Amino acid sequence: VRRVPLSSPGNQTVADAGERAIIAAIRTRVPTAPAWLAVGIGDDAAVAEPERGALEILTTDASVEGVHFNRRFSAPCDIGWKALAVNLSDVAAMGGAPRLALLSLALPAELLIADLHALLDGFIEMAGEARVTLAGGNITRSPGPLMIDVTVTGTARPRRVLTRGGGRPGDALYVSGVVGAALAGLEWLRRSDGSPAIPASNTRLPEDAALAECVQRYRRPAPRARLGALLGRNRAASACMDLSDGLADAVDQIAGASGTGAAIDAETLPIPAAARRFFHDLGRDPITAAVAGGDDYELLIAVPNRARGRFATVQRQARGVALTRIGELTGEPGTRLLRGGRAEPLPAGFVHF
Amino acid sequence: VRRVPLSSPGNQTVADAGERAIIAAIRTRVPTAPAWLAVGIGDDAAVAEPERGALEILTTDASVEGVHFNRRFSAPCDIGWKALAVNLSDVAAMGGAPRLALLSLALPAELLIADLHALLDGFIEMAGEARVTLAGGNITRSPGPLMIDVTVTGTARPRRVLTRGGGRPGDALYVSGVVGAALAGLEWLRRSDGSPAIPASNTRLPEDAALAECVQRYRRPAPRARLGALLGRNRAASACMDLSDGLADAVDQIAGASGTGAAIDAETLPIPAAARRFFHDLGRDPITAAVAGGDDYELLIAVPNRARGRFATVQRQARGVALTRIGELTGEPGTRLLRGGRAEPLPAGFVHF
Repeated sequence: VRRVPLSSPGNQTVADAGERAIIAAIRTRVPTAPAWLAVGIGDDAAVAEPERGALEILTTDASVEGVHFNRRFSAPCDIGWKALAVNLSDVAAMGGAPRLALLSLALPAELLIADLHALLDGFIEMAGEARVTLAGGNITRSPGPLMIDVTVTGTARPRRVLTRGGGRPGDALYVSGVVGAALAGLEWLRRSDGSPAIPASNTRLPEDAALAECVQRYRRPAPRARLGALLGRNRAASACMDLSDGLADAVDQIAGASGTGAAIDAETLPIPAAARRFFHDLGRDPITAAVAGGDDYELLIAVPNRARGRFATVQRQARGVALTRIGELTGEPGTRLLRGGRAEPLPAGFVHF
Repeated sequence: VRRVPLSSPGNQTVADAGERAIIAAIRTRVPTAPAWLAVGIGDDAAVAEPERGALEILTTDASVEGVHFNRRFSAPCDIGWKALAVNLSDVAAMGGAPRLALLSLALPAELLIADLHALLDGFIEMAGEARVTLAGGNITRSPGPLMIDVTVTGTARPRRVLTRGGGRPGDALYVSGVVGAALAGLEWLRRSDGSPAIPASNTRLPEDAALAECVQRYRRPAPRARLGALLGRNRAASACMDLSDGLADAVDQIAGASGTGAAIDAETLPIPAAARRFFHDLGRDPITAAVAGGDDYELLIAVPNRARGRFATVQRQARGVALTRIGELTGEPGTRLLRGGRAEPLPAGFVHF
């Protein structure tokens, strides 16, 4: 195997550089480890001192080329950012605060070292924003797609964890931020993809600034890390889940795990005007699209009557994050979408197979 | 998407079954969770109570079809077993005891549900033997190879962790079990692979029982979980690493991280007679093959003089595991193989790119 130093410019691939040089390069890029990390990158495993008196939250989520991302739609730095962001969203949905990450990469041999570094740029930027420490991982060759498997651990105080199954009939359902924006962004990318040159299309944006925001939201979702931790710490919710597979899926999962039904009021859904317009122009029903579409890393939150005061406190503390009441959990089983005085079944969420 | 109940027989694929049915099926197969696991499979993340007063060990290792395994060489249950075993080997190499696992699967749409269940059989069997709890994971489609990414956490007492970098000149180097057996097994599989029918070849064995053992060792390595935990608990080693990428790589990594050199005595290497014969018949030097070959999930252990008594205790307690002295760390830099009175450079280990 030919070995070229990592510093060489241009068209160097990961196969040229080799596994050890890549690990050594990643190691130099990670900021100084916190005192609780006894062993970081470069040994058989990482070693961390657990946080005293806290429960540990553990999640793993894979980003697979051709399933979760397309190198024609997202720049490598966006792909790295999002691979971590989706895991932080899971920790937030449990009411926890993230702590450390493991990064497992399966790399096509022809991947450019420059693109790998850009991917790490995005990952490290997201880690910095969320104060998450990259503690270790794994690198292997992929004979197929680029795959980024991330594991994140976090912490929550005992009895402060939010599951999907704690909801009761009558609990109000809130959603953070907006829904349908990421799907609108993805659809714009699919439709505007014509150029054969990847660098030209993976940073491409629509002229309409509001629609451009939808595209950026698809590329770089902002996980609701602070909101999730506040909801957990303040016991402001009975159940919580993130919208990775769409609002309809999340409503269905919370209702199913809680043993309730759910009713969503279509008129209240926080769908951005640009996304509504865009779906309308495509001849698609904006509400169905927004409810079924995935990739919105927002939180669906069930709030019981007794927690209304605490939820209002969280709402104030999470300044800048919109929280919209969109319906409630019901005693009657099944999930329904209330629309123009009629009830229809919720559309199916994103399906991985 | 067509949905078929998981109980339906025959040629059902993972795409037929769908993500939710697969997760539900996995959930029913996992034994009752221990009391310290507050939230297991099926929520946004798992939640565990950390072990009091212990450090946490975290590792992640991917098994990729076409790189780490071949469905013509290993049955699905062997692939599932090994995907967990290689992670347990990393925890053992840190001197820790494993505790929980996360399983991230990227599945080709055409994978048979029966094969997925067989893969889980092997994973769950290995987890049972090692007393590891499957706490959660992720399932996604793969547009390419089958990928199994496993994260394992474990525990060790403070100041009982074994890194690669604690060795000093004069420390004796020991290796557990045998080396070169897995490579001999893999080479036999490569050479005997002719039949187009996968089920016929992925359980195939040579007539020679000793060589058949090498093949089984390649398919189902036994991680040195008990030995690793004993070495850590008894402070019987200054450095430790597993042989996943071969003995030569492990010697090089321990010497490099410890700031020493190393000398290995070729005559002492515990290479099984069947593997020696097999390499010899192929016209390959058995020692070079055994030293460079990967997939032996044994431990390389540096033992300082002051720990000789404690190491002897571990040797007695780890009954049945051979521990062979194969050389020592040296003040002189570089790694050398001593053979017939001459020193040669150690061959390069397994290279992932």
